[in-house]
Amino acid sequence: MARTIALLTDFGVDDIYAGVVKGVINAVDSAINVMDISHSVRPHAVAHGAFLLYAAFEYFAPGTVFCVVVDPGVGSTRDAVAVKTGNYCFVGPDNGVLWPAARKDGIKQIVTLTNKDFFLEAVSATFHGRDIFAPVSAHIARGVPLSEMGMTKENLLSCALFDHEVSEKSACLKILHIDRFGNLVTNMRFDDIRFLQEGAYRIRINSRSAAGIFTTYAAAPENALFIIKGSSGFMEISVKNRSAADFLGAAVESGVSVTYEHA
Amino acid sequence: MARTIALLTDFGVDDIYAGVVKGVINAVDSAINVMDISHSVRPHAVAHGAFLLYAAFEYFAPGTVFCVVVDPGVGSTRDAVAVKTGNYCFVGPDNGVLWPAARKDGIKQIVTLTNKDFFLEAVSATFHGRDIFAPVSAHIARGVPLSEMGMTKENLLSCALFDHEVSEKSACLKILHIDRFGNLVTNMRFDDIRFLQEGAYRIRINSRSAAGIFTTYAAAPENALFIIKGSSGFMEISVKNRSAADFLGAAVESGVSVTYEHA
Amino acid sequence: MARTIALLTDFGVDDIYAGVVKGVINAVDSAINVMDISHSVRPHAVAHGAFLLYAAFEYFAPGTVFCVVVDPGVGSTRDAVAVKTGNYCFVGPDNGVLWPAARKDGIKQIVTLTNKDFFLEAVSATFHGRDIFAPVSAHIARGVPLSEMGMTKENLLSCALFDHEVSEKSACLKILHIDRFGNLVTNMRFDDIRFLQEGAYRIRINSRSAAGIFTTYAAAPENALFIIKGSSGFMEISVKNRSAADFLGAAVESGVSVTYEHA
Repeated sequence: MARTIALLTDFGVDDIYAGVVKGVINAVDSAINVMDISHSVRPHAVAHGAFLLYAAFEYFAPGTVFCVVVDPGVGSTRDAVAVKTGNYCFVGPDNGVLWPAARKDGIKQIVTLTNKDFFLEAVSATFHGRDIFAPVSAHIARGVPLSEMGMTKENLLSCALFDHEVSEKSACLKILHIDRFGNLVTNMRFDDIRFLQEGAYRIRINSRSAAGIFTTYAAAPENALFIIKGSSGFMEISVKNRSAADFLGAAVESGVSVTYEHA
Repeated sequence: MARTIALLTDFGVDDIYAGVVKGVINAVDSAINVMDISHSVRPHAVAHGAFLLYAAFEYFAPGTVFCVVVDPGVGSTRDAVAVKTGNYCFVGPDNGVLWPAARKDGIKQIVTLTNKDFFLEAVSATFHGRDIFAPVSAHIARGVPLSEMGMTKENLLSCALFDHEVSEKSACLKILHIDRFGNLVTNMRFDDIRFLQEGAYRIRINSRSAAGIFTTYAAAPENALFIIKGSSGFMEISVKNRSAADFLGAAVESGVSVTYEHA
Repeated sequence: MARTIALLTDFGVDDIYAGVVKGVINAVDSAINVMDISHSVRPHAVAHGAFLLYAAFEYFAPGTVFCVVVDPGVGSTRDAVAVKTGNYCFVGPDNGVLWPAARKDGIKQIVTLTNKDFFLEAVSATFHGRDIFAPVSAHIARGVPLSEMGMTKENLLSCALFDHEVSEKSACLKILHIDRFGNLVTNMRFDDIRFLQEGAYRIRINSRSAAGIFTTYAAAPENALFIIKGSSGFMEISVKNRSAADFLGAAVESGVSVTYEHA
């Protein structure tokens, strides 16, 4: 049985928040592996966190507990939840951040975290990552069943990551993520791009001419926008050896239009 | 018995220094858990490191060894020390960085690190984190008693983090830390704020009007300074969904004045 | 037998790439220690990665597997390789990034990674760190011999990190790395600096006057360039309590000239 907790938060790496969360887990059970997925979700950006979790979770071992803290509503009425799915367990606020991943893996059980036996003794109003989500994740990784954590809940709040508009000549997409290299991850799965299925096309991205669709960065021309199947399976927009984000002046959650016509 | 070493340094994450320290610990004993508290203490800022250690250490399991490297005086006459306290052990330079945490936990034993058997073979003049503090921490985590590490020392250099002036109408505080969200952590414990104890107040922070004191971010109004009990128990200054640091033009170690009068 | 994998990549810490690589390793064998050397190699900068690996590897335990991903040619014709050396194993692209470290430790065996049994089931065109290098590293750490991974290869692509010109009165060096403190690491080993061997010298660095050679930062004067033996054994250029990089306007891979004459 795997005893790994994977962390995804918006704490950044310039603070002690992520370290303290690891300390709390380690204090519950020092045999648990604690792994960072990332602490660089944009502050309070639930949709960004939801996408990164969705893109990462399936690479972890079955049985991994995901402790996810992107929690702008901490201390308000949003629920704290744990979700058992086909292969994993997800712990975090019920604000949509867990939904795309949990749904993909098949939701089996949702509980609202109310049993204070599994919290730190003093629960602050501002840092439930440390006081609730970390110790609950650790107790779940140790094998405590979800049913002891609180009451069953029917549904998770959803998060509409992948809604986009596609017509015969254009697609209106959203940028879910920009990676370190400036590649823009859109919210359309590459394999769903219909205009790629036949013939040659002239493609424009935000009104700028694009060089086409390439399989590798190495094969693309210099200094031109191009489309590539990203490593998470989504359509990405890139410029070889440059930042496509700078090239287009694009930001996470901004829209991007792709138009295409037969060449 | 816990065998965890928690690291707090000013190495940053853009370098190999933290990685090399982990390699040295792992080479002494691969069964030791190595955890990052943070590597983002501001470069050479002893007081900043002292605060972050103080805010984090109690969340770790008893028996944890803290390896703390904020060491502007490396290679000069400052001592290298290990400190046994009620529940933990602290290893680092004797420049004040260990003092607030060690004192809070109750200092039991201090030794100056002089026994080269526990150092790397070649000790550089500039990187004692790698050459002294990492291997000494690892040997302590393995169970070597402090008495074998060097001579007993009477006192640690202190660090005056929490000195501040409070009068009937104002408080002159210092900013100990700014978190990723721009929240300002002051050096006054929230529970010591006398002006909160009775009645309604008009509060100004650095001459700007503040909305008052709130228990959660969610409850505070938009676009206004407010006071909140931070997750470390200190009085924090925040602006909802914005950076209070940007709002006030504040920096770590700068002063902040809070004035208050009956409403 | 050590079962540690140390990661060095250009993924940065603002993304999930490093986290996903750890998940893949953990899914192969959750008993493997995964350690970060750094994820802050400059994007696609093979020589920068080669230097950081060279500076770090010897501090890790014998038997450590280094998984190194600086891979601008991913998806093109560059080979993926595993290299057994005197004490370690190195896994990554054959683009020069492994060469300085592997050569220093003594190359024993090189294989081209072609056996898909040790890859993830679906191999993307853009993320071999996740799909090839991570699972192969994990299987090697578990004890699978290199000979099962693919065909033997004669040579690694080399990387000329340490070439520089030195005359009686000047040295033309290259900056291999700039650390968080702004110290400039040059590509000349400190112990090779002949002009230090005798007498007093007037030294200029990029035409600016330098204060000389100091053993510790503490001993150097304020606001002046000086030369110091860096913790990796290379000649470094520093300014006490300031960034030498800012002082000189220097960048990684830029040249730096050092001139010297008898005082």
